[in-house]
Amino acid sequence: MEKLSFASDYMEGAHPEILKRLIDTNMIRSAGYGFDEFSESARNRIRKACNAKDADVYFLVGGTQTNAVMIDVLLQPYQGVIAAKSGHITSHEAGAVEHTGHKVLELDHIDGKITDSMIDSLITKYRQDENHEHMVMPGMVYISQPTEYGTLYSRKELEAISSTCRKHGVFLYMDGARLAYALSCPENDVTLRDIAALCDVFYIGGTKCGALFGEAVVIPEHDRIPYLFTMIKQHGALLAKGRIAGVQFDTLFTDGLYDRIGQTAVYAADRIRKALRDKGYTLAVDSPTNQIFVILDNEKAESLADKVELAFWERTDDSHVIMRIATSWATSPEDVDRLIDCL
Amino acid sequence: MEKLSFASDYMEGAHPEILKRLIDTNMIRSAGYGFDEFSESARNRIRKACNAKDADVYFLVGGTQTNAVMIDVLLQPYQGVIAAKSGHITSHEAGAVEHTGHKVLELDHIDGKITDSMIDSLITKYRQDENHEHMVMPGMVYISQPTEYGTLYSRKELEAISSTCRKHGVFLYMDGARLAYALSCPENDVTLRDIAALCDVFYIGGTKCGALFGEAVVIPEHDRIPYLFTMIKQHGALLAKGRIAGVQFDTLFTDGLYDRIGQTAVYAADRIRKALRDKGYTLAVDSPTNQIFVILDNEKAESLADKVELAFWERTDDSHVIMRIATSWATSPEDVDRLIDCL
Amino acid sequence: MEKLSFASDYMEGAHPEILKRLIDTNMIRSAGYGFDEFSESARNRIRKACNAKDADVYFLVGGTQTNAVMIDVLLQPYQGVIAAKSGHITSHEAGAVEHTGHKVLELDHIDGKITDSMIDSLITKYRQDENHEHMVMPGMVYISQPTEYGTLYSRKELEAISSTCRKHGVFLYMDGARLAYALSCPENDVTLRDIAALCDVFYIGGTKCGALFGEAVVIPEHDRIPYLFTMIKQHGALLAKGRIAGVQFDTLFTDGLYDRIGQTAVYAADRIRKALRDKGYTLAVDSPTNQIFVILDNEKAESLADKVELAFWERTDDSHVIMRIATSWATSPEDVDRLIDCL
Amino acid sequence: MEKLSFASDYMEGAHPEILKRLIDTNMIRSAGYGFDEFSESARNRIRKACNAKDADVYFLVGGTQTNAVMIDVLLQPYQGVIAAKSGHITSHEAGAVEHTGHKVLELDHIDGKITDSMIDSLITKYRQDENHEHMVMPGMVYISQPTEYGTLYSRKELEAISSTCRKHGVFLYMDGARLAYALSCPENDVTLRDIAALCDVFYIGGTKCGALFGEAVVIPEHDRIPYLFTMIKQHGALLAKGRIAGVQFDTLFTDGLYDRIGQTAVYAADRIRKALRDKGYTLAVDSPTNQIFVILDNEKAESLADKVELAFWERTDDSHVIMRIATSWATSPEDVDRLIDCL
Repeated sequence: MEKLSFASDYMEGAHPEILKRLIDTNMIRSAGYGFDEFSESARNRIRKACNAKDADVYFLVGGTQTNAVMIDVLLQPYQGVIAAKSGHITSHEAGAVEHTGHKVLELDHIDGKITDSMIDSLITKYRQDENHEHMVMPGMVYISQPTEYGTLYSRKELEAISSTCRKHGVFLYMDGARLAYALSCPENDVTLRDIAALCDVFYIGGTKCGALFGEAVVIPEHDRIPYLFTMIKQHGALLAKGRIAGVQFDTLFTDGLYDRIGQTAVYAADRIRKALRDKGYTLAVDSPTNQIFVILDNEKAESLADKVELAFWERTDDSHVIMRIATSWATSPEDVDRLIDCL
Repeated sequence: MEKLSFASDYMEGAHPEILKRLIDTNMIRSAGYGFDEFSESARNRIRKACNAKDADVYFLVGGTQTNAVMIDVLLQPYQGVIAAKSGHITSHEAGAVEHTGHKVLELDHIDGKITDSMIDSLITKYRQDENHEHMVMPGMVYISQPTEYGTLYSRKELEAISSTCRKHGVFLYMDGARLAYALSCPENDVTLRDIAALCDVFYIGGTKCGALFGEAVVIPEHDRIPYLFTMIKQHGALLAKGRIAGVQFDTLFTDGLYDRIGQTAVYAADRIRKALRDKGYTLAVDSPTNQIFVILDNEKAESLADKVELAFWERTDDSHVIMRIATSWATSPEDVDRLIDCL
Repeated sequence: MEKLSFASDYMEGAHPEILKRLIDTNMIRSAGYGFDEFSESARNRIRKACNAKDADVYFLVGGTQTNAVMIDVLLQPYQGVIAAKSGHITSHEAGAVEHTGHKVLELDHIDGKITDSMIDSLITKYRQDENHEHMVMPGMVYISQPTEYGTLYSRKELEAISSTCRKHGVFLYMDGARLAYALSCPENDVTLRDIAALCDVFYIGGTKCGALFGEAVVIPEHDRIPYLFTMIKQHGALLAKGRIAGVQFDTLFTDGLYDRIGQTAVYAADRIRKALRDKGYTLAVDSPTNQIFVILDNEKAESLADKVELAFWERTDDSHVIMRIATSWATSPEDVDRLIDCL
Repeated sequence: MEKLSFASDYMEGAHPEILKRLIDTNMIRSAGYGFDEFSESARNRIRKACNAKDADVYFLVGGTQTNAVMIDVLLQPYQGVIAAKSGHITSHEAGAVEHTGHKVLELDHIDGKITDSMIDSLITKYRQDENHEHMVMPGMVYISQPTEYGTLYSRKELEAISSTCRKHGVFLYMDGARLAYALSCPENDVTLRDIAALCDVFYIGGTKCGALFGEAVVIPEHDRIPYLFTMIKQHGALLAKGRIAGVQFDTLFTDGLYDRIGQTAVYAADRIRKALRDKGYTLAVDSPTNQIFVILDNEKAESLADKVELAFWERTDDSHVIMRIATSWATSPEDVDRLIDCL
């Protein structure tokens, strides 16, 4: 029997519907670089789901790539991007943003989230500084939905952030690597339409949400970034067989699959959270999506490690660690039972 | 009936064996970022095929990405890369190499190829220049096998180039985007083992050779590039589900599939070449692989365009163009018959 | 009468000795790019003063340029530089370090200083992180002497930092933009020889210490950075008439001028500090060099502004600001008298 | 007696008027970063000389720096700069332009010059290419006046180039490192006013034209490049004591000094050219300014080298070389006599 693992949400291949569609379309000939019928269909379905009929949609391969490319093309050379200290771009992308020449202006976070007033303060402070001409200027705000801690921005919070960004003329960018797990979450009140209305650029995650790979970048305002196609190529991020991403997103946006694909994960996570609480465990963060952060003492962590693979998150003190439990679209009820038995 | 197309060699999905393997392995859980069993197996098979047991092997997504990342990490900041004017990095990668900060030092080409003596002259000229400290220093030679014109370096030519590079202490890098079509070509006398022995870094193309996507970078000498994993991540080129590339290359290197996969294409191209010659067409280049460059007068080009999709290559004068005919692993004999009938 | 100003330490031209020497040597012909007799002499005098006979010495133009170029050439692409949040590179160089592709890993500071244990913790944390291969790796520590707050590292502190850096194999880089004001300070116990023994690279500031412009980069270990000349050129930082910097540093290191040039400033600052304390002002930082940071209430700040130009530093609350008073080699006793009268 | 040298035009310090002015203004206190009275006066004098009252004027330190910074800030990331193969940016700036991420699109040259039709052809070819979205797009034309071969663009030629650039919407940038030697040349018919009317950005050279250092960038259209100040800082190209450049250019543009300063050089070069022709030497290029390119056989080159220092330019064949003779504002009639005697 395969060892139980809740280490991450990208341990399997793809959702069966996606694989099936890849097989069915395999020998149809199509143009390269996204100029194929599948990509065109996927773009239209995404536009519709986002209620953004003029949106530009591009399919990139992975999250770090998407963040680095889009932040680089959106920012002016003298601008930086505001992000939470816990943001993926801040810590776990090997400096990909700085590699493109831009500074990440870090904010403290509350369970992975930042607020409109924190953003407002930073921008105001930078712009009013006597030395502002010698400083990096904030040009964009980066947020994740759900965040790296599995938490969610409410619509009200997102509206406030968006409004602050627009007041100051800085872009709002949302990293939706795990967006399906937000959309499937009962506590979530932010729809794709809300996101498209409130963000300047965002991406709909595929890699962690059931695709083999792929992230769909959505730019609600058409032609906001001239020559984007060429710049994607220049960053080495243009897929020759764009159809492979196109087919996947076309499937994900057929019959509401993307809205449903995270349900299994969130339901599984809810069961695990309940079991943890019932058994007296302490959760480090109150997250409603597919990631659970549990505080364990060293012995418990070690004994659990024999039975189930979890992800190490951080050490809180000499005798305690935070471990992450991640569910996914592929998590089976049996595995959840087995995990709960181990706890 | 679908319109006949010989426009490129990446118009279909993947070779059926690859798709089958993706399906078979789909629900097996594995670690991310290439630390999975499939990638490990693929690396071992490639090491064996290359007779390079210590080689480092990384799977990247596409050709431009692979070229840009590897050239950037191999070169020192003050170095440039020598390449043919016809080289893919020189003209059709949107300046991806320059985007990483390095100059392409261009050489004239002979049907897409450069020679050891051209390389030797350029390096000598640069190094002996009175102003050499104010100049970009050659740090690498970039060649393609087959070249962008479908031609091949012979083993003797490759040995001479390799020897020149080693004499001068510059890296030899081979772009093998279409390498399968070289390996399957009767005229070819350069094996994977030769390439591994003569080049410092090269990649084995997947995207144009039957994979959904993917290029296998081979660095015969272990740990030649410290922190390469992190630098791949930093360039946005690290696949989260590395297994998807791993499974594909594991399949391509099982039972000699990669050696055979180009045969259909080369056989088809040979038939087309013969038909073109028999019908009195002029070929622009004498290429033995899966790409054919034929000179057409304007009327012929227009009348053909109604029946078959070809790729425009360049205009030679007011009344003539060069069109490219590309075959692939997926080209059917029936389509070749139909094309020949059109000519 | 010119308005009194203590706004910065680079408000005048150059020390008279320097100007005199520029005049005396003006019509002597010499080679460009630092291959002149004056630069050679200056390099030798600096080597002697640093007790570093094999040191490589380069003359660059300004502080931000020197920091950006040297950090970029010292770091590997996947590395970042550790610095205090108050470090000049962190905040007031318009993101010049990030512009070269490197992240600044920020540490909290104590009056502008960081400690060996803070450095040790950060490096250990980064290197031991489960995700360290997805993170920027610390490759260098950046410190300033004196710091941006006018404070000084003691020899003991510097030894501890150096030892920590060497233990971890990261470079120690010192920004000496105002180094003369440290060397002239009675409280200072760190000599040029200590710095050369303890740092991997540092620069001796000219611009803020009596030169028209210029910073002398010292690399105690010969040829530590191959092709540095070319990389300086590539960064646009190579002076055509290198002699102009050479003559200035040759003068600054003749007859101990650099050791003495800050005395006037420190003596003036001491008088001002005493006056401030006597009159009941609160100093924000206990700095012994040429920069004084005084907390003023808004009314006082406004009334002072009519009589003397100071530099705004930061707002501490709604009714108080920190203003910086900077003295220099050119500060006259009369101006100090006038300032004290105003307080 | 000092050895005779015609090796370059930057072997001395500065024109005596400039030194005098630096001395006279030395102890006047002023703001940093170009916000001083001298820089302001210099900017106004330059605006007047260029008949460009709204022009933005910035003082940078050297030619390579100016080219790299200005080309980088003017181009979009996906754009490259068209230049002659002989252009300074193409060959002798250590890849500084590529270091900022941009490709140099090289054109053949005629004695250092390129033509409007060559530019038109290249732009048309790139824009109409089937693969243009995968290619670097031309965004700027770089020319030098005088060129690296000492030749001059006529007003008619410059008008044609300017008109071609405007037709295609690409910037025209002029490198005026030696502009004084063009303005002082009897054959020249291009004034500063013409240049300001026909170019989008250009710089007036100081380093090679009598200043200690410094280049004045002129952007005739106000605010064409937002945040240029910050981007100059970010590139490490902002002078702290901007006054030092300001005083120098203020002097160069007082009483027409810049118009006259090259006269001595051109008159000396004319005498040398006449002597060379009279004695039967062959000139490689017919250049009317301060640079002379003479073809020498090896023996003659060697025997001359004992008596006078010249600059090696290139080897034309096994037995001949081209040597460059450069005069400057500081060349004395006596030295010209001595040189002619040696020939």
